[in-house]
Amino acid sequence: MRRLATRTVLFHQAAAQSLGLFPTDLKSADLLNELGPLTAGELSEKTGLSSGAVTALIDRLEKAGYAKREKDPKDKRRVIIVPLTAGKSQVKELFQPLSASTKQLTNEYKREELDLIIQFISEAAEIMEQELQLLKSKS
Amino acid sequence: MRRLATRTVLFHQAAAQSLGLFPTDLKSADLLNELGPLTAGELSEKTGLSSGAVTALIDRLEKAGYAKREKDPKDKRRVIIVPLTAGKSQVKELFQPLSASTKQLTNEYKREELDLIIQFISEAAEIMEQELQLLKSKS
Repeated sequence: MRRLATRTVLFHQAAAQSLGLFPTDLKSADLLNELGPLTAGELSEKTGLSSGAVTALIDRLEKAGYAKREKDPKDKRRVIIVPLTAGKSQVKELFQPLSASTKQLTNEYKREELDLIIQFISEAAEIMEQELQLLKSKS
Repeated sequence: MRRLATRTVLFHQAAAQSLGLFPTDLKSADLLNELGPLTAGELSEKTGLSSGAVTALIDRLEKAGYAKREKDPKDKRRVIIVPLTAGKSQVKELFQPLSASTKQLTNEYKREELDLIIQFISEAAEIMEQELQLLKSKS
């Protein structure tokens, strides 16, 4: 797990760098794609970044064309950060070789083996999320 | 895998930030702990960072007490970056709750299930390493 985590962090560092972004920017764009539009406050909560850091992050995402600040159609007083398709496809392209290699790896496993692996990885992701919130609450 | 990767990157960002480091610094310290002393060139190769970025990174690691530049005892003309125990224990403490939660998770699985999961995760780490090198060779 630790070896995978190290390579994951380094891979995302290199991937973000190749797009002129920080790793957190890339993963925040990913979070927006995964969860849909969020407010700056929600993005701060999800990423564990301070509100100042999130403001700078949204500025970079806007500049790079990955997201856009918009008035919430449901509540005009709220500003939401909306992921943009252009950035999405660029990120997708960057991760395409990794996705393909991972898909090839999964082909070597049986359905029931994959179910088990997916269950473990989902639980590990859940733990990582809890630990992130814990770490954030301490700082 | 993607959800886990996102949480991994965000967790390491928050963990590094709490130590006044960048995520790459923390993972480089981890790489040194894992692989033993490396030259700046080897560290650049392993992390995918440019040699200029690695110089700044080593400066930060030295300043934070995680590593030290030393003359290679086997070849005095070479400088190697040696991991320091003090930093190691501080990082260990920071990751302790995550380690404990992950260990608890593994306790819910049978030995043969864990063997399968470990095999998959090792292969995934290997793929991530290859993709990192690929990404680096393109930039």
